[in-house]
Amino acid sequence: MSLRVPPPQSLREALKVPDRYMFGPGPSNVPPRILEAGARPVIGHMHPEIFEIMSDIKSGIQYLFQTQNKMTFAVSGTGHSAMECAIFNTVEPGDSVLTAVNGIWGERAAEMAERIGGRVNAIVAPPGGIFTNEDIEKALSKHRPALFFLAHGESSTGSHVEYNCLFLVDSVASMGGSPLHMDQQEIDILYTGSQKVLNAPPGTAPISFSERACRKISSRKTKPLSFFLDFNWLTNYWGCDDKPTRVYHHTGPVTAFYSLRESLAVLCEEGLEASWERHRTVAEYFHAGLENIGLKLFVKDKQVRLPTVTTIIAPHGYDWKEITSYIMRTHNLEISGGLGPSAGLVRS
Amino acid sequence: MSLRVPPPQSLREALKVPDRYMFGPGPSNVPPRILEAGARPVIGHMHPEIFEIMSDIKSGIQYLFQTQNKMTFAVSGTGHSAMECAIFNTVEPGDSVLTAVNGIWGERAAEMAERIGGRVNAIVAPPGGIFTNEDIEKALSKHRPALFFLAHGESSTGSHVEYNCLFLVDSVASMGGSPLHMDQQEIDILYTGSQKVLNAPPGTAPISFSERACRKISSRKTKPLSFFLDFNWLTNYWGCDDKPTRVYHHTGPVTAFYSLRESLAVLCEEGLEASWERHRTVAEYFHAGLENIGLKLFVKDKQVRLPTVTTIIAPHGYDWKEITSYIMRTHNLEISGGLGPSAGLVRS
Repeated sequence: MSLRVPPPQSLREALKVPDRYMFGPGPSNVPPRILEAGARPVIGHMHPEIFEIMSDIKSGIQYLFQTQNKMTFAVSGTGHSAMECAIFNTVEPGDSVLTAVNGIWGERAAEMAERIGGRVNAIVAPPGGIFTNEDIEKALSKHRPALFFLAHGESSTGSHVEYNCLFLVDSVASMGGSPLHMDQQEIDILYTGSQKVLNAPPGTAPISFSERACRKISSRKTKPLSFFLDFNWLTNYWGCDDKPTRVYHHTGPVTAFYSLRESLAVLCEEGLEASWERHRTVAEYFHAGLENIGLKLFVKDKQVRLPTVTTIIAPHGYDWKEITSYIMRTHNLEISGGLGPSAGLVRS
Repeated sequence: MSLRVPPPQSLREALKVPDRYMFGPGPSNVPPRILEAGARPVIGHMHPEIFEIMSDIKSGIQYLFQTQNKMTFAVSGTGHSAMECAIFNTVEPGDSVLTAVNGIWGERAAEMAERIGGRVNAIVAPPGGIFTNEDIEKALSKHRPALFFLAHGESSTGSHVEYNCLFLVDSVASMGGSPLHMDQQEIDILYTGSQKVLNAPPGTAPISFSERACRKISSRKTKPLSFFLDFNWLTNYWGCDDKPTRVYHHTGPVTAFYSLRESLAVLCEEGLEASWERHRTVAEYFHAGLENIGLKLFVKDKQVRLPTVTTIIAPHGYDWKEITSYIMRTHNLEISGGLGPSAGLVRS
């Protein structure tokens, strides 16, 4: 057979990547140290040296999450893979799932759980709004879910433990920039992404499972639907399960592991509390400056604003898309539009 | 709350990555040009420049696969993600699936299809063996599958079309190093990995779907179980579906896209036919050399040996693990042990 599709002309040109100020909610600018780590030579996904690096990553995530969970690792994918990893492993068809929806993440968690046969109920707050402990306890008592999903990890009452419900928290946008203590807050499954506060390229997603979560997984009657995201395979690959040998599961993205490792090393150097404080101080300064020039912030209550994501209401009569396009064109600076319920808003 | 988990000591040390000769079945050594591409600055996963790069990738894959399929893109994950992407989107619970098992890949495809409720049948050949057109036609006629899985893409009879069956081919180990013409061979879904012949880091997986495959997907009665791997979302993100806007689905691993793009550019420069010829010549030379020093190859029939993966039988009385460990220790050179049915064998 002869070739029928010629090589594309576009690939004869050099790769062009602009230098850009990344001030959206992620990915963030990546410091040279982390980019360089990701350009080190490829080694095998089962070599002893990559197991060392994965062990460093595991310890780094335990520090970042403030957890002593053995079952702590990184998913070979972005935040959405970690979301599916959490839901696919802890939910069986017919399980009751409760999601807190105040934006796109709760909606997506609900969609994922529905697709695999979960019976999903939601408590809904206005976009950017919060849920009180009473809201949550009432819904737990009513729906008796096996899993409760919440984005950004406002503190919980611990009442999920009484209801024998696992507490799943998405901290993609806030982890490392805002206080969160997985063990002390009794969070059962927690995940984040590499590309926000950690300042690594997107492509890996730290995740951790409590002993309660592990018990639910080990008592499953059905196999998780995904082989790629199967908890038992992944924790064996990451050496979390104390088995004497690791079995080939998938080819880990080794260079992405290098940069994730380095991003965690940078965080350890600064220290979690210093990072939280830096984000708090900068955010307060930024928010005050925005309000001083007459802009309005989408989240009214200062107490519940994330220090890592600032949502600005486009001034009346202006098109947010025109504003962000102008800023990108003129200053090569990214500010994103809102997603889901905050679509039509501007955020940075 | 105060910190209870201290930063790990191991992350205070510098990242250590050895330079290694990667002569296993993958990942391969990555040339500096491709590593450097992956260390370019991060831009947004929805910026026009990344859409350009994704468009280059799409054209490059169409050339690599020899296909004109519009629905051609890269999964944000390794080969196993692409395998799940293919199976999750084309198989509904209750669908009949036929897998050709002559090694670990057919087994894994079977496991994935079973997990999502496929009725799986297998035709089995000895490890490394091949399937005749008669074997395949007999099984198609008997099981009437909706999907037929085969690794490495030996040529097909086209009889799957008569039986209204989709033909799924895993070409992770061979793509780019051994002739394959997706359109002319009437392959319906084809995928590979970035880390083998393409010499990019692991973490992305080129995939393509024929129009027949798209029709099966669009006539689904149920949603695919994975949101992250959902064909409609992915093809929209990749701009394959002609919709005027792309909706945020997941945060693409932008730096992995840079290196994938560059690896495809390198392949286009050499040309597919030159790459096939180079792999053939080198493999023949290598195989002859091995046989000249008295080693036996696992795949007896020269015609069916992959030019990209050479399986050597450990000489009688020797432990393969000792041999590969010695070579790694002394020459810093990776040769892998076999997987699945070829465990206990040595391959490079």
